Amino acid sequence: MAPYYLNSWYCAGWSKDLTDKPSGITICGKTLAIYRDPAGSVVALDGRCPHRFAPLAKGVVVGDRLQCPYHGLLFDRTGACVHNPHGDGMIPPNARVESYPVQERAGALWVWPGDPEKADVDLLPSTDWLVSDAYATATGYLLVNADYQLVTDNLLDLTHAPYLHPGTVGGRPEDSIGQVMEHSFETTDGNVIHSNYRVRNMPRPTPQLLPLWGERPGDFYAEMRWQPASSMELDIFMTEPGEDKKAGVHVPTLHYLTPTGDGATHYFFAIGRNVMIDDDEQTRLMAHFARIAFEEEDEPMIRACQDLMGTSDLMSLRPAILRTDVAGVQARRVLGKLMKAETAVA
Amino acid sequence: MAPYYLNSWYCAGWSKDLTDKPSGITICGKTLAIYRDPAGSVVALDGRCPHRFAPLAKGVVVGDRLQCPYHGLLFDRTGACVHNPHGDGMIPPNARVESYPVQERAGALWVWPGDPEKADVDLLPSTDWLVSDAYATATGYLLVNADYQLVTDNLLDLTHAPYLHPGTVGGRPEDSIGQVMEHSFETTDGNVIHSNYRVRNMPRPTPQLLPLWGERPGDFYAEMRWQPASSMELDIFMTEPGEDKKAGVHVPTLHYLTPTGDGATHYFFAIGRNVMIDDDEQTRLMAHFARIAFEEEDEPMIRACQDLMGTSDLMSLRPAILRTDVAGVQARRVLGKLMKAETAVA
Amino acid sequence: MAPYYLNSWYCAGWSKDLTDKPSGITICGKTLAIYRDPAGSVVALDGRCPHRFAPLAKGVVVGDRLQCPYHGLLFDRTGACVHNPHGDGMIPPNARVESYPVQERAGALWVWPGDPEKADVDLLPSTDWLVSDAYATATGYLLVNADYQLVTDNLLDLTHAPYLHPGTVGGRPEDSIGQVMEHSFETTDGNVIHSNYRVRNMPRPTPQLLPLWGERPGDFYAEMRWQPASSMELDIFMTEPGEDKKAGVHVPTLHYLTPTGDGATHYFFAIGRNVMIDDDEQTRLMAHFARIAFEEEDEPMIRACQDLMGTSDLMSLRPAILRTDVAGVQARRVLGKLMKAETAVA
Ligand code: FES
Ligand code: FES
Ligand code: FES
Repeated sequence: MAPYYLNSWYCAGWSKDLTDKPSGITICGKTLAIYRDPAGSVVALDGRCPHRFAPLAKGVVVGDRLQCPYHGLLFDRTGACVHNPHGDGMIPPNARVESYPVQERAGALWVWPGDPEKADVDLLPSTDWLVSDAYATATGYLLVNADYQLVTDNLLDLTHAPYLHPGTVGGRPEDSIGQVMEHSFETTDGNVIHSNYRVRNMPRPTPQLLPLWGERPGDFYAEMRWQPASSMELDIFMTEPGEDKKAGVHVPTLHYLTPTGDGATHYFFAIGRNVMIDDDEQTRLMAHFARIAFEEEDEPMIRACQDLMGTSDLMSLRPAILRTDVAGVQARRVLGKLMKAETAVA
Repeated sequence: MAPYYLNSWYCAGWSKDLTDKPSGITICGKTLAIYRDPAGSVVALDGRCPHRFAPLAKGVVVGDRLQCPYHGLLFDRTGACVHNPHGDGMIPPNARVESYPVQERAGALWVWPGDPEKADVDLLPSTDWLVSDAYATATGYLLVNADYQLVTDNLLDLTHAPYLHPGTVGGRPEDSIGQVMEHSFETTDGNVIHSNYRVRNMPRPTPQLLPLWGERPGDFYAEMRWQPASSMELDIFMTEPGEDKKAGVHVPTLHYLTPTGDGATHYFFAIGRNVMIDDDEQTRLMAHFARIAFEEEDEPMIRACQDLMGTSDLMSLRPAILRTDVAGVQARRVLGKLMKAETAVA
Repeated sequence: MAPYYLNSWYCAGWSKDLTDKPSGITICGKTLAIYRDPAGSVVALDGRCPHRFAPLAKGVVVGDRLQCPYHGLLFDRTGACVHNPHGDGMIPPNARVESYPVQERAGALWVWPGDPEKADVDLLPSTDWLVSDAYATATGYLLVNADYQLVTDNLLDLTHAPYLHPGTVGGRPEDSIGQVMEHSFETTDGNVIHSNYRVRNMPRPTPQLLPLWGERPGDFYAEMRWQPASSMELDIFMTEPGEDKKAGVHVPTLHYLTPTGDGATHYFFAIGRNVMIDDDEQTRLMAHFARIAFEEEDEPMIRACQDLMGTSDLMSLRPAILRTDVAGVQARRVLGKLMKAETAVA
């Protein structure tokens, strides 16, 4: 079985961060150079020059073409070498690199590392709130030094929040979301996993929601959607007890995981809110809470688990499975099935 | 043959350093979480939570139980999971970790990584002077980035002292212990190796003994005892020429080596003296000399040897054997025999 | 096939840097200790003491012998242990290390890691200008974290200069040596490769030559000679258009590559000039340009290429071969032939 599920969109960054300066990223073991051409459209090429394997991501965009930083060969958006500045200028037939399907959608960049014929824009995760005027937003990036499926496990089992994040996105076990949580779980469209938590009349909000909601009770919702291979959206709501959740505070978040190919994971995250949207200090604070939670709490824990596992294949170690692992276990099952099918075809 | 001799006590730390905050240590490849319960007794558990393999050493002690830092499972001193705070609280049968025999004896903590049935307190090294009022003492710890048997070799062959430690625990080759040393050697109890050095009428003490003895001659004794797998005690004496050694300055030292399992060695050391025992400046100086000698002189040398060996199996390189290697060679022989027997049984 | 060509001289340093303090260097996987004895002659011994494999390069020279830093064995220039300071002083027969053929020639030190019988001083590269009064000179050293053949490729294909070194030894692609270059190429003595570049009436010199030649046109020559395994000399000339090159500014440079044996390369470089030879500020500037070009431009690029290759065997990746690769390809061919012959004999 292939080590990665290739026929899937993987997040390659946030739109606003990509310019005509090429950006290098490794996705499922493939090294890419991504840049924005003068017309604004995005190009994703294999990042290794076919001449001496220099990193094209260190090159410069000349017109709408990418110039290798070592000896100056020029490549167009299809990956063909179109200019050799030396000697008689002859271009050998193998002077070309792969070009990858790439999409830009509502603030995020997506690359399809698998068969280009199968690239399907209907599978792109939707991130509309990220570009909506009704939300204040912040985006971030973190390199997690662990397998992406361990990060998926982390996100699909929010029971860790009161233990790992008591001061940020969780709250102490003894109050807030450490209280009785109701959990519902379903799979839709065959492959999309929903894992929804609710705490009715929670005495006080999580530290992250405190400045938005105030020190008073409310109904708390945390609704997670996962879709293969590793894209997650978590909607957090806090409302007056019994009220419709749409009427309350909405804090949507994105968690896009992209395996590097050497055991680490690109973690692109975004967070928004539908209240106090012009308050820049709140936006700064919101980004700060997310950074602390992911970078100083989740990442070291996930990395420590992987170090102690000594493998990235969790199931081979016969872990103790709790009821609360249902979403994570189901995601592994769905992804395993898809990977098996992909390998069988190939 | 197993890579480590498991049916042995290995030092896991100094008593005074262990609190109810768990401490993590890897011994012979086994990751442990060690803590002191509210009644003061010591618990040593396998340090990998059976749920998602989080490091239990990062957890907190709640009552006399250890709480996993990731999702909060609670383990008792036998290693059984006794509480799951989530959902219906069900505990799967494989939610348990190993518990290891552990002993606390005269200031040191000891773990038995092998068969618990065979754990034998009569094999514990004795460290009584460490808790005696007649001695001033200091303890320390150093991670040596080399195989523990190379550290044993270092300690069992004190002829290196004038070359590697001329300014600390040795003295220049041309005076002090570079002078003619008498050496006697014996094995007792089958497995305990004694390697005793004596310099009669040594013109001046080693730099380490200078503040305790003064700039004048004396008889110098260095008596090393090794017991398997890797515990050593070195008694240094300096006396008036011809006098009984018990009447003189006594500087006992401990050198407890614990293989980590990935090629490095935990080196727990202690040093004492029976003179000027209320002089804190002398204690500070004594600890300083030991730290410089072990950390800045021995450790880099042993590490450099291992790097140049390219293996930790010294004998496979057919080294030149000197007469002065007798104790080190004998220790390797004893340990090899014990490891072979242990493997045969298993 | 052996991984290195051993029957060759490899540069081990610059004469002026070697004293009676031993210097450690690894050449083709062999760890050496090199020192200058009191008579001024150079000794190269295997750097691992046969007793416990301590690094002899950390030892001290006592008379004309090298003392091991661990237990003090003494070795003479043939590598024989000639003194054991301990016990009865017996020296076991295997207490000896290899001694390597070593030469000092016009400012450079050379070691022959192969069969001593075959060491041939006629194969030593000539570096006479380095010790000539007619030149101001500077030497340097850089550890390149990549295979030496990739460094050879870099040096034998100067078309990279305008792309990688526009501000130092190259000049922007649009002027200077980015202009039409004539290239001639030949192999002499079977194994010596000449790769000569000429730019007629170049509008302005490279940044490196600017202070020596001024802001005016001239004929520019860059003449490279390679000899196995990896010694290169590059002569740069700038003259009045049409004039004989010997009449102009001459900037000779040396590029001696020595594989460490673990994938990295010792890069010993030297640079000289036949004008303004008493101007120390120019010498400082000349060394600065070389350091920037090699350390901050070439080394990171070569390392990045090797990282992206994932192997040091360039040809196994079927690179696109350009016309301008002729010298590099020929050098690989010559060296491959020599290595095959060496292995066949062995
Ligand atoms: S490596 Fe890209 S042009 Fe040479
Ligand atoms: S990893 Fe320990 S409770 Fe989940
Ligand atoms: S290691 Fe060189 S003398 Fe012992």
